[in-house]
Amino acid sequence: MRQSKTLIPTLKETPADADATSHKWLLRAGYIRQNFSGVYSFLPLGKKVLDKIEAIIREEMDAIGANEMLMPALQSADLWKETERWDAMGDELIRLKDRHNRDFVLGPTHEEIATSLIRDEVKSYKQLPLTIYQIQTKYRDERRPRFGLLRGREFIMKDAYSFHATDESLDERYQQMYQAYTRIFNRLGLNFRSVIADAGAMGGKDTHEFMALAEIGEDTIAYSSESDYAANIEMAEVLDTYQFSTEEQKELAKVDTPNQKTMQEVADFLEHDLDQGMKSLLFKADDQYVLVVTRGDHEVNEIKLKHHLHANDVELVDEDKTFELMNVGFGSIGPIGVAEDIKVICDYAVKSMANATCGANEEGVHYINVNPTRDLHDTEYADLRFVSEGDPSPDGKGVIKFAKGIEIGQVFKLGRFYAEKLAANYLNQQGKAETLTMGCYGIGVSRTLAAIVEQYHDDRGITWPVHLAPYQVHLLVLNNKPEQRELAEEIYQQLTDAGFDVLFDDRNERAGVKFADSDLIGIPYRITVGKKASEGIVEFKVRQTNEQDECHQGELVDYLNEVLN
Amino acid sequence: MRQSKTLIPTLKETPADADATSHKWLLRAGYIRQNFSGVYSFLPLGKKVLDKIEAIIREEMDAIGANEMLMPALQSADLWKETERWDAMGDELIRLKDRHNRDFVLGPTHEEIATSLIRDEVKSYKQLPLTIYQIQTKYRDERRPRFGLLRGREFIMKDAYSFHATDESLDERYQQMYQAYTRIFNRLGLNFRSVIADAGAMGGKDTHEFMALAEIGEDTIAYSSESDYAANIEMAEVLDTYQFSTEEQKELAKVDTPNQKTMQEVADFLEHDLDQGMKSLLFKADDQYVLVVTRGDHEVNEIKLKHHLHANDVELVDEDKTFELMNVGFGSIGPIGVAEDIKVICDYAVKSMANATCGANEEGVHYINVNPTRDLHDTEYADLRFVSEGDPSPDGKGVIKFAKGIEIGQVFKLGRFYAEKLAANYLNQQGKAETLTMGCYGIGVSRTLAAIVEQYHDDRGITWPVHLAPYQVHLLVLNNKPEQRELAEEIYQQLTDAGFDVLFDDRNERAGVKFADSDLIGIPYRITVGKKASEGIVEFKVRQTNEQDECHQGELVDYLNEVLN
Repeated sequence: MRQSKTLIPTLKETPADADATSHKWLLRAGYIRQNFSGVYSFLPLGKKVLDKIEAIIREEMDAIGANEMLMPALQSADLWKETERWDAMGDELIRLKDRHNRDFVLGPTHEEIATSLIRDEVKSYKQLPLTIYQIQTKYRDERRPRFGLLRGREFIMKDAYSFHATDESLDERYQQMYQAYTRIFNRLGLNFRSVIADAGAMGGKDTHEFMALAEIGEDTIAYSSESDYAANIEMAEVLDTYQFSTEEQKELAKVDTPNQKTMQEVADFLEHDLDQGMKSLLFKADDQYVLVVTRGDHEVNEIKLKHHLHANDVELVDEDKTFELMNVGFGSIGPIGVAEDIKVICDYAVKSMANATCGANEEGVHYINVNPTRDLHDTEYADLRFVSEGDPSPDGKGVIKFAKGIEIGQVFKLGRFYAEKLAANYLNQQGKAETLTMGCYGIGVSRTLAAIVEQYHDDRGITWPVHLAPYQVHLLVLNNKPEQRELAEEIYQQLTDAGFDVLFDDRNERAGVKFADSDLIGIPYRITVGKKASEGIVEFKVRQTNEQDECHQGELVDYLNEVLN
Repeated sequence: MRQSKTLIPTLKETPADADATSHKWLLRAGYIRQNFSGVYSFLPLGKKVLDKIEAIIREEMDAIGANEMLMPALQSADLWKETERWDAMGDELIRLKDRHNRDFVLGPTHEEIATSLIRDEVKSYKQLPLTIYQIQTKYRDERRPRFGLLRGREFIMKDAYSFHATDESLDERYQQMYQAYTRIFNRLGLNFRSVIADAGAMGGKDTHEFMALAEIGEDTIAYSSESDYAANIEMAEVLDTYQFSTEEQKELAKVDTPNQKTMQEVADFLEHDLDQGMKSLLFKADDQYVLVVTRGDHEVNEIKLKHHLHANDVELVDEDKTFELMNVGFGSIGPIGVAEDIKVICDYAVKSMANATCGANEEGVHYINVNPTRDLHDTEYADLRFVSEGDPSPDGKGVIKFAKGIEIGQVFKLGRFYAEKLAANYLNQQGKAETLTMGCYGIGVSRTLAAIVEQYHDDRGITWPVHLAPYQVHLLVLNNKPEQRELAEEIYQQLTDAGFDVLFDDRNERAGVKFADSDLIGIPYRITVGKKASEGIVEFKVRQTNEQDECHQGELVDYLNEVLN
């Protein structure tokens, strides 16, 4: 393609609204343009990379026997009301009405549509298992769209849905999908981790997220320094490996702590470290009030709390309500002498604390010398806190480290949640109706494109992996001298005839502009026709490594065949 | 692909809502399913055909140097207000609001987005001409979605936009697009006509529609019996080739025609043919009242009237208003003695009428023996009527015939309408800002799929052209006998290894079901493993022609290579 005939609007300056590295380079190198907040156009270069990513995804989905189809973005609200996601999705769900005032949504995912299709078309166990997928545009009205393609309102996803008669069949498909995702992200050249994730409210069981490692990532991954263990920080288990102190247990006593509210204030006032304090927080878990106690330097993980209590909903009780229930404010609540209708649970770390401090359930008063195994009664211990860097890895190998990740994919055993809501049954071998079980499997396609740029760039622009770059070769001609123009035209013809995908910068621009644009765009191999054109000699440069060399026109095809294959 | 592992839900009966031939077969053969009125899912077979159609379109667009990109479906209402299409599109435009109560539309086309992109990114004549295109999902809230994929609310289009400095450049691109469209529809195997069409209200100039011929078509094409002339019936010119009568002109006279309202009633009452009456209709063209006169057997073509008067809007005046203006009702208005502020125009055919009848502008009175060249004064003559079958073709070759067509594509010289509304300028060679001129070029991709089925079916199902079929070969095994199963598995492996795209009906179904499904689906070549399996002999059948033959397993690859290449 001649650069003069296509649209690659590079920018010298970084646009003010570019709030992520990938966003900056994709805008500056002319791959995308924002239409409005969270909605983008893919310009010709962006579309070419998108196609290459999609082709890899398709190959791997087809290889495991998933069936590509195409479902609509416009969805009737009725199905969403049946699954109760009409309410559950809140403002993120884009809603509209047609000319007859009927409600519709723009699909953020397609569980409803896919399940209702299979409900209507699959009748027998003989037709199962069945996996369908699509690559299609999704909609989500983000409160704060940001980071370019990483968090948009209109975006491209690959979403797959598998339908099964048995849990074993689902397990098998889940593993196949997991392996296919691993192959896809490896082929895309991404530095990624698959992490244990939270199955959330949709009644699912196992789920893994695939995270591309990147500073801009909005998720924290807890991974082992020595094994392949990795989990979303919300899900990373903390083992009960705390050692009991050998310190002598002192006598429990009350002390005045006037106006000391926070853990830090109390610790400073009583002149001990933060980890000698016991932090007590009152939660409402469905209809039950629960006092949760952690060590002062630890943070309660509400997802763990929810799972431990098998609760649908967990929320912190506000100070007024706390006062009403416990007759004392936030600063001085504690686990000793709590009313019977309030359940007390402590994080494992609390059990081994010695001579610790906690609120005494009297305003401005704390207990000191609390020894939980001695002083707390009717108390459960559980893993309730967020993991910290340096904690032992739950698989027993190495210690936990943190990294930031961009969620690019998720595999999810949905189970029977949607099938039950939508009455999606099949007839088993005995002719009896049973509920289908399901998996769903997503890849954020446009987000993955941005994640690749987060990992493949330098200070001059994008440095695409060879097989994802919009073109294989960038051919530059430095000026309008006839010998340069002629040689460049010859080479363009020669390489195109040999089957290479070439972008030919034939524009009437200064050499400096062409070099800068070429670095921005990031095509892996650059051929520059310059001063030595009359000798048939050109410059050959590798974008990722900056290696460069002179090369005779006659050697180009062989050389390119060598580096590209 | 094994048929047991994919989703091809064939139907024995035609669904009640299938209101077009293509709709019926696409539903029955399991290519599509309706999600709700006017919105469809493409099942695996449908998606495969869609991909093949899209690939042909892409090849031809790329071959003429159009640049593929991808614009969003979600569009800010602001641009639509700037071009005034926010109002002009009426209820067909799907509107929505985001969480911040801002207005959006779901794009029915992308002139606004494309023009604003080029306005922002293209600055100089050096970057022109430039053509962009996309294959993307469009939305239109049809009052009455029908005919399956032919008139839906969510549908797939290829839309291209070209931007030019000069009219000559636009003319050149228009011709290239016209040729590319001709190649595309030829490659898709369609029986189509390109027809002269109406440029409509958007200020455009030349435009051609590409019509697939089909009985279900909502457009009437007027074409020549002897040349390649074809036009939308709205646009087909009628030449002024009428012969004056040799009949003696009689004296103009008034006759009473009490209660005779319609042309037919008056003709019967006065005992003459319909074509001896002059039909007068009062229109309002912008702010001007115009009395339009045609022969009694002809119909006024409002588009011709609008063009003749250079009016933006033309509408028939109702009877009350007619009475107010002319002091007489519909039945008795006529062109003689009309008030000066009402313009009179007659269709060419009126000029040569002899001793004709027209309303006398008195209730229940008509003139007889009207001879227009003698009795009508200050009257213009023009081509104002719809063409009829048998009229001479405007190119002088043959006579006009009618056919029904499905509009599958349109090429359109938009000119400067959008560029002016959106201030899309470029700097010319003198550094002076000038307005861009534009073309736009659409293909209804999902509609084209349906149009192909309208032309390729028989009474048992779809009869795909070879290169558009979802698979090349349909392999059937008739029962579960080991020798049949084994041979079928061997052939499946053999053909797949040889690179053929095979659908293998490995289901545990009766032979009759398999044959019926295979006919419905319409894969061009069918191989049936049946009774002679133990001898390695199979049946080979061509779907379109029903030719069938026996064939030894060992000959299959060669035979398929021969028929497929």
